[in-house]
Amino acid sequence: MSDDTHPGTEEPNGFSRALLPAGLRDLLAPDAEIEAQGVETLMGVFSSHGYERVKPPLLEFEDSLLSGSGAAVAEQTFRLMDPDTHRMMGLRPDMTPQVARIAATRLVNAPRPLRLSYAGACVQVKGGSLSSDRQVSQAGIELLGEDSPEADAEIVAVGAEALSVLGLERISFDLTMPPLAPALIAEAGVAEAHRGALMRALDRKDAADVSRLGGRMAPILSELLLSAGPAARALEVLRAQPLPPGARALSDRLAETVSAIERAAPGLRLTIDPIEFRGWRYHTGVCVTVYAAGRHEELGRGGRYLGGNNEPACGLTLRTEALLRAAPPRPSRPRLLVTREADPALLARLRAEGFATVATAGAAGEAEARRLHCTHLLRGDAPVAL
Amino acid sequence: MSDDTHPGTEEPNGFSRALLPAGLRDLLAPDAEIEAQGVETLMGVFSSHGYERVKPPLLEFEDSLLSGSGAAVAEQTFRLMDPDTHRMMGLRPDMTPQVARIAATRLVNAPRPLRLSYAGACVQVKGGSLSSDRQVSQAGIELLGEDSPEADAEIVAVGAEALSVLGLERISFDLTMPPLAPALIAEAGVAEAHRGALMRALDRKDAADVSRLGGRMAPILSELLLSAGPAARALEVLRAQPLPPGARALSDRLAETVSAIERAAPGLRLTIDPIEFRGWRYHTGVCVTVYAAGRHEELGRGGRYLGGNNEPACGLTLRTEALLRAAPPRPSRPRLLVTREADPALLARLRAEGFATVATAGAAGEAEARRLHCTHLLRGDAPVAL
Repeated sequence: MSDDTHPGTEEPNGFSRALLPAGLRDLLAPDAEIEAQGVETLMGVFSSHGYERVKPPLLEFEDSLLSGSGAAVAEQTFRLMDPDTHRMMGLRPDMTPQVARIAATRLVNAPRPLRLSYAGACVQVKGGSLSSDRQVSQAGIELLGEDSPEADAEIVAVGAEALSVLGLERISFDLTMPPLAPALIAEAGVAEAHRGALMRALDRKDAADVSRLGGRMAPILSELLLSAGPAARALEVLRAQPLPPGARALSDRLAETVSAIERAAPGLRLTIDPIEFRGWRYHTGVCVTVYAAGRHEELGRGGRYLGGNNEPACGLTLRTEALLRAAPPRPSRPRLLVTREADPALLARLRAEGFATVATAGAAGEAEARRLHCTHLLRGDAPVAL
Repeated sequence: MSDDTHPGTEEPNGFSRALLPAGLRDLLAPDAEIEAQGVETLMGVFSSHGYERVKPPLLEFEDSLLSGSGAAVAEQTFRLMDPDTHRMMGLRPDMTPQVARIAATRLVNAPRPLRLSYAGACVQVKGGSLSSDRQVSQAGIELLGEDSPEADAEIVAVGAEALSVLGLERISFDLTMPPLAPALIAEAGVAEAHRGALMRALDRKDAADVSRLGGRMAPILSELLLSAGPAARALEVLRAQPLPPGARALSDRLAETVSAIERAAPGLRLTIDPIEFRGWRYHTGVCVTVYAAGRHEELGRGGRYLGGNNEPACGLTLRTEALLRAAPPRPSRPRLLVTREADPALLARLRAEGFATVATAGAAGEAEARRLHCTHLLRGDAPVAL
């Protein structure tokens, strides 16, 4: 132990005990409580729509953790050896593949559609492009065994309701259809060698290069590139394009999904970026990213994919710490200073009324109350605000 | 993908995707939800006594995770290399050392006593002697900066109240004073070489060997060995023994703590095992183990220790999955089958009344309701029980 100017924070070798690895953080009061209450609020909404909570473990054998949809996050996974079996385990970077595993194994005989919810912490080797956080807390839902616009819409509508209950009202759901751009490129008559360059041009939204490299699809791709924005306008542009049959089917499905969302969650702010495909590695249909209006931070994402046994599935995963930063602040419990000699029945009643009773061994006066960050003192049987 | 008799559970190489490493489990419905609600119930009680929630990360540099009280669990810690710094990180096996770190660093200037609460998952290399679980969910409290019988008693009383709110009424708190046996052995006049054998004899409660190896303290150690049981009787035996001064001070402190617990939580079932010291590696005063009456499973444990900068501290950590197994079952939300065309306002009202609305794309008849494990059907605007 050292006695230098920052007691407790410095070891003799100069190593700071307060230092955490990059992207890992302590949440303190009141943030840790606000986040936990927010998660339970979300889970309560999910439960009210029939989503049943599952809790997979933090670690699994990597063969199961990284199979199927999990393969997309293999390079983001910390690995550990199981001393019992000498097989490699992974620390989960994402819960969706775990939930898909549960659906395909222990719940393979459960009736479909199967609705599952989950909440927990995930750890990634490196922070994402949007955030340096390496530990990410997720809360989400997965709907397995139904491939329909209504199922895609349910995920969005339930997510929107959960965010609204949290107090996040100005939310934007940004829809994409990741297979659409590849379907167009396949019909563009572009040499295999040039497809990569076209994909990259689409990826960075470079209109000049898309026009130059897009082959037969250059006019359509250029129109779609410009159509990103409010859903109604983007769908109008899509309808007006002479799309090849595969792309037309995808476009129709996107339009049906928007209609279903509008029925299930009227007034929701929807945008569409029709040619966006980046980062949706295991997704096979409509995908969605959730933003708080006016903030750049992503609150969550989801979409359609294939679960175990190629079962159709869709889901939405919210990042709970990001929600916390975007949600309006909540009042915390008022703190009432009490002595340990106070009547236990009185204190129990005051706690039931919402006070935190903070016991002191000292004199329960105003100075002690302020020192312990209390908001109230007990005068007789009554709490008095400071 | 295979098409054998257990679709989804077997890969072509015969590896079962359902297999998890020993000691790691999926919690399914309703257990995962019951556990999560139980944790929030516990945390609500902790909060009502002024304990403020913190959330340390799953991983830390091992220098910080395993310093101080964390050293006791070093061999139970999975280690990982941080690719950024090439320093070793540990996956937390226990949250108490993390909370002590927060108290000694970021909260070093917060007023004392400092009351902190926490809940989260921990991972241990091997399951403990009491359970094969390697992932353990904890929920606990730590009270830092006060060394008094009242502080020890507060931890026990708050824990007992939390368990009672969970519906666990028949709880036993088993108290120990781990420094007492070493204090007696130090005065026994036993050769250094024989102390280990005496410790082991005490550890396995071998009265004959304790009597044979106990030196000057043999009569006292033998009496104390037999006194384990209800607190009042054990304290009577302790009072009657001619203890050396160090041991007497420890015995007096134990008696004062029992008195303080009886004031703070009247009627609590307390036992004392005065010479128990096993497994309390970083504890320096009164310790407690919590059992549900009639069950052998440990629900939690805690006690007094030294935090960072040798700050006096005490805490209690509950094992939330063990609580779930011991708690009375709770009614789950009734499930109401609905169609996606049903009136959204009606469904919102029914959810607010406590129903889970389970949407189906099919006909919302009784057969479909039973297939989806629903308990209710909608007839007109009214839910009807099946």
